[in-house]
Amino acid sequence: MSAPSASFSVTMRIELDDPRGVGSVTTAVGDAGAIVTALDVVESRTDGIVVDLTCNAVDEGHAERLRACVDVLAGAHVRAVSDRTLLLHLGGTLAVAPRVPLRTRDDLSMVYTPGVARVSRAIAADPAAARNLTMKRNTVAVVTDGSAVLGLGNIGPAAALPVMEGKAVLFKRFADVDAWPVCLATQDVDEIVRIVECLAPVYGGINLEDIAAPRCFEIERRLRACLDIPVFHDDQHGTAVVVLAALTNALRVVAKKPADVRVAIVGIGAAGVAITRILHAAGVGDIVAVDRAGILTRDMTGLDEDRAWVAANTNAEGRRGGVAAALRGADVFIGVAGPGVLGEAELLTMARDPIVFALANPDPEIDPAVARRHAAVVATGRSDEPNQINNVLVFPGLFRGLLNVGARKITAEMELAAGRALAAVVGESELSPAYIVPTVFNPAVVPAVAGAVEKVAQNS
Amino acid sequence: MSAPSASFSVTMRIELDDPRGVGSVTTAVGDAGAIVTALDVVESRTDGIVVDLTCNAVDEGHAERLRACVDVLAGAHVRAVSDRTLLLHLGGTLAVAPRVPLRTRDDLSMVYTPGVARVSRAIAADPAAARNLTMKRNTVAVVTDGSAVLGLGNIGPAAALPVMEGKAVLFKRFADVDAWPVCLATQDVDEIVRIVECLAPVYGGINLEDIAAPRCFEIERRLRACLDIPVFHDDQHGTAVVVLAALTNALRVVAKKPADVRVAIVGIGAAGVAITRILHAAGVGDIVAVDRAGILTRDMTGLDEDRAWVAANTNAEGRRGGVAAALRGADVFIGVAGPGVLGEAELLTMARDPIVFALANPDPEIDPAVARRHAAVVATGRSDEPNQINNVLVFPGLFRGLLNVGARKITAEMELAAGRALAAVVGESELSPAYIVPTVFNPAVVPAVAGAVEKVAQNS
Repeated sequence: MSAPSASFSVTMRIELDDPRGVGSVTTAVGDAGAIVTALDVVESRTDGIVVDLTCNAVDEGHAERLRACVDVLAGAHVRAVSDRTLLLHLGGTLAVAPRVPLRTRDDLSMVYTPGVARVSRAIAADPAAARNLTMKRNTVAVVTDGSAVLGLGNIGPAAALPVMEGKAVLFKRFADVDAWPVCLATQDVDEIVRIVECLAPVYGGINLEDIAAPRCFEIERRLRACLDIPVFHDDQHGTAVVVLAALTNALRVVAKKPADVRVAIVGIGAAGVAITRILHAAGVGDIVAVDRAGILTRDMTGLDEDRAWVAANTNAEGRRGGVAAALRGADVFIGVAGPGVLGEAELLTMARDPIVFALANPDPEIDPAVARRHAAVVATGRSDEPNQINNVLVFPGLFRGLLNVGARKITAEMELAAGRALAAVVGESELSPAYIVPTVFNPAVVPAVAGAVEKVAQNS
Repeated sequence: MSAPSASFSVTMRIELDDPRGVGSVTTAVGDAGAIVTALDVVESRTDGIVVDLTCNAVDEGHAERLRACVDVLAGAHVRAVSDRTLLLHLGGTLAVAPRVPLRTRDDLSMVYTPGVARVSRAIAADPAAARNLTMKRNTVAVVTDGSAVLGLGNIGPAAALPVMEGKAVLFKRFADVDAWPVCLATQDVDEIVRIVECLAPVYGGINLEDIAAPRCFEIERRLRACLDIPVFHDDQHGTAVVVLAALTNALRVVAKKPADVRVAIVGIGAAGVAITRILHAAGVGDIVAVDRAGILTRDMTGLDEDRAWVAANTNAEGRRGGVAAALRGADVFIGVAGPGVLGEAELLTMARDPIVFALANPDPEIDPAVARRHAAVVATGRSDEPNQINNVLVFPGLFRGLLNVGARKITAEMELAAGRALAAVVGESELSPAYIVPTVFNPAVVPAVAGAVEKVAQNS
């Protein structure tokens, strides 16, 4: 299913004996399945030319094959191949920036000693002043233990850092939130909770990220209990809010009401639990939750707290079995499990105009092209397909709203409101099976989500 | 000893019935001991005028008196008084800044998913790659527990944050180091050590700041043992390095050699121990260390590890007594204690051309004007006196050097080299009793200090 993409963009530095050889190089690279995006002449001499050819490839192996197919051309030699994504991350993607000038001794005396002592005294006298007189007003810690990073698994805190930096870049770019990576060299729940508690004075919010289930549930619950700033596990709630928005609009497309539909959710991990909770709160008719052991039923015992809640609040009909039993007659499939979970045959047993959200990344539960043969609306987590369910649609605006009002908690009502506001960004005339969520660069997204969160906060 | 300063700059918004009243206002404010630095007309009407008058005051009480002395003028009314330092710190002084563009979906796919997964995989495969592919290459954590903030004492982590923000601003402004405040809501040594250990993956260095003695010694020692990045308690070593530089040049002024002089150090806390160690390493002839109980002697028992080292390596003559006994015949007084510790009478008992470093802030151990009557060279920690012993001369360049070479440790040799390089910034023709250290805005300082540190690192 892979296609060449900018995320795997390489630049080859190529020596050519004859400038007219450029055409044969670009042709060879194109024939090998890459997409040429740039060609720059680096040196031009009487006896030859050196060019930088930049192209989108599929993966590491493809990049190697591209090199080989240029090297075999007469009069051509690849001097080096560089990975543009690695180059972009050289030295990291995040820095700090002073918000105040520091040109003179007078500036120094106000930014730092002795003047800053007066700011410290003001906060010591009135701790609430920290929200106004420090960076706390606009900061979010992006906290991970590196245990469940993207689809890569337990790769540890150092390897998680580029992801958290990227996340912080998105926070700043989309919502002017000052987010900072906190990659912890521990995977002990007690330690993580205590550390974040001790770090909290600097931050106005905590974004938990890429922490494995079920540890993530306990960490979030305990931090929410002990901190007076909002704590949000993006892999759970961010995904849930976007799913709610996407489902709201998908149901508009097929003209069904939330209260009338049955949703099958496959994969009851961090995201699956949160999706179940938000859809339940949003009034979805019935939900059937399927984990590795099959459909969760009300008579199950020995479940952890979150799955027990799911079992108690879903499956009104008492269905038993696996994915096939859950899907029979269902209006909506939501997969947060892994590739191959949904077969074409099961899809055919769903109700009329089925909705398929196949969210496993990078390989969805069903090939979206196959799903589109039968489903009325198909969404995935992929950026190269329509209807991308992308957390970037939620977390920047959500924290923008929380910080704007100095919120101490994040509530289920705020998440519902954020999901509904995100759905409403897609106007009636724009709505279509291929456009149920706005794109991440739509400038209306962050104000809509932030505004909805602020409104709930102010009313509560 | 206080004079009006920019660190206490206030702006008064004043309504005047008659525009010609402006002169009487500025006169009144000047007569009351303030320095007028700006006057802006905010509104001009036929029946009067509103002006913003900015002036440097001495302290809170002075600002209140200024308001009162304007309010009593006929036809004048102060609408509001605002503290410019507090205004400067509104919302904090530090933000984050992406180092990469994020304009298109292609950018997004390289900065974040899916491209970033390749960066994470590269680090998972080779942990050393984190130094190149993440922000770790240029980041320093500024860690405090809020227990000894400036001269304010144990005001806690929230009230310490403006100071740590300011410190991070200086790091960026002077040495392009990305420093980030870590203000911990714990004062337990074990917890602090463990937390910093767990935070370390994100950072290339740790700057401990404003942590009370003796806790700071143990924290630094244990972190240095467990981390593979440099750990530096600025209140100890930063001060010590600047003192070494200043003393090196003060001795040049009076034409004495380090090996020939006796130094009395009063105040054996965090800074006093570090100063003793660096001067001992630099080959100073003898040191007499005085704490609250008097001169430290070799037969003392029950001292903590650091004071025991000081007692064992100082006071070759076996002097006993207090400050007076330590000063008799001494060449150098270094005070890191508090106001009033050094009397004029004791100063008169010192050797010829005495050197006085009275470093307590904001009120030195002796009034510098009094000290200058008898001493050949006088230095303080104050920005409104010549020869300011200011850590800003050291920590930016020191960490710049450490990060440039990816140093895993900071050594006593690096600190010695940094101090000597800082001293050498003052050329032979510039050197004078009133100019023994360069000013913080001297652009030669950071490259000199960084270069010295890099050289030692590369040779070891």
